[in-house]
Amino acid sequence: MENIITSKDNSAIKLYRKLADSKKERYELGKFVLEGARLVGDAVNEGAELSHLLITESTTDKYENILSQVDLKKVRVIIISNELGIKISSTEKTQGIFAICDMPKKLSLSKFLNSGGRYIILHKLQDPGNVGMIIRTADAVGVNGVVLCESCDIFSPKVVRSTMGSIFRMPICWDMDIDDVLSVMDKQGIETLAAVVDSDAYDIKNYSFSKNCAVLIGNEGSGLDSDVIQKCNTPITIKMNGNINSLNAAMAAGIIMWELMK
Amino acid sequence: MENIITSKDNSAIKLYRKLADSKKERYELGKFVLEGARLVGDAVNEGAELSHLLITESTTDKYENILSQVDLKKVRVIIISNELGIKISSTEKTQGIFAICDMPKKLSLSKFLNSGGRYIILHKLQDPGNVGMIIRTADAVGVNGVVLCESCDIFSPKVVRSTMGSIFRMPICWDMDIDDVLSVMDKQGIETLAAVVDSDAYDIKNYSFSKNCAVLIGNEGSGLDSDVIQKCNTPITIKMNGNINSLNAAMAAGIIMWELMK
Repeated sequence: MENIITSKDNSAIKLYRKLADSKKERYELGKFVLEGARLVGDAVNEGAELSHLLITESTTDKYENILSQVDLKKVRVIIISNELGIKISSTEKTQGIFAICDMPKKLSLSKFLNSGGRYIILHKLQDPGNVGMIIRTADAVGVNGVVLCESCDIFSPKVVRSTMGSIFRMPICWDMDIDDVLSVMDKQGIETLAAVVDSDAYDIKNYSFSKNCAVLIGNEGSGLDSDVIQKCNTPITIKMNGNINSLNAAMAAGIIMWELMK
Repeated sequence: MENIITSKDNSAIKLYRKLADSKKERYELGKFVLEGARLVGDAVNEGAELSHLLITESTTDKYENILSQVDLKKVRVIIISNELGIKISSTEKTQGIFAICDMPKKLSLSKFLNSGGRYIILHKLQDPGNVGMIIRTADAVGVNGVVLCESCDIFSPKVVRSTMGSIFRMPICWDMDIDDVLSVMDKQGIETLAAVVDSDAYDIKNYSFSKNCAVLIGNEGSGLDSDVIQKCNTPITIKMNGNINSLNAAMAAGIIMWELMK
């Protein structure tokens, strides 16, 4: 424990803010930030590597439980003033607890796929809320892993927050090239399924998903690129009973994952 | 068409802003606001009653198609300066098209349920994005109607936007009392199903939904109140295969509606 930090020029505070704001900084330093009791608690419970834990002076008693679980030889615990907590918070009403966390080691895709199973591949997903919700849902329904290609940064505060802790539990392979992913999948005999809006594609209601397969989900506005669809083994679709032919991308992914895993 | 409006003190601009900001104003005047080409276009296509259409000076050519469809005897078309467009916009990059729309007439619940079918009832849903996404998904999968009890205002700009036009297509009954709803459902012989996180509840994978039924979805954080669960006919649940026992409320509702309607 240290004295209460009040200055925004403190090195840990500066680091926190840089990591919160800049993808470049996150990847250069291999770290990202967490905010809130649930997220920091999940990180500690799941054994994520924290380097700093920042707690506001008025909440130290409240977070005794989290504090008692961290290894003080590895984690630097810093008490900050309430004003500073409000300053670095990205929420309207801060809970007064923040952490800096090491990114997990990125696995090679072949290793990632070693155990077999059913995967989700996101290509050009741009909305952090959608990506977070898909990772959370993948965790809930038991998908074996999520692969991100040209999508928004999974270590951005918004994505991390909307995973609700699933970022620490799900096997995730990020920053991948879609062609590389498709060719590794092909080599490993994993069926690739392109989620499309096309009445000629296979209806997910009746499709028998193989034990080793991966579903590709495309951009919110424009869906999957046509050349990506071409390279996949099978086009699948959600047949609509209603009046519109498009669901929100995260909802479509959620319904497909539900059918995939049930 | 009129001269270009540049002043934020113009009566239509003042009305637009009041309606965007205040639920009280919306309900007193029976009007709400729309922003963006897709939403305004959907409103026009679905025959919603517009009273004002506001278009920025630089986009009038772009929206000729929408302009040609509105009845100029009923809709007051106002050209506003680009600066004013930026000022009244709730998005970072405005598309320069806005409308003021009359709320549809609210039906009595008994009339609303007349045709029978399958319904979703939202109780104490607080997140506008969740409510909008549920209405959009209900439309896509063919749910017969949505009932809102003590939930956030469906005519707030955020909910309206996240319905992606489904607010004009879906039968919606808002601002209802949950006890009244349950008793009308009971009287009309509609089975009420409480969506809960409870391993003893019926698994939606195997449940045979009756032709006339309604699923109740509760608050994002705390779920349905226990007295509401008690008053429902049947508890249903999404059995999880994964590591967490909770999905985002909109995702849970989406998966349940998918099973309900397929």
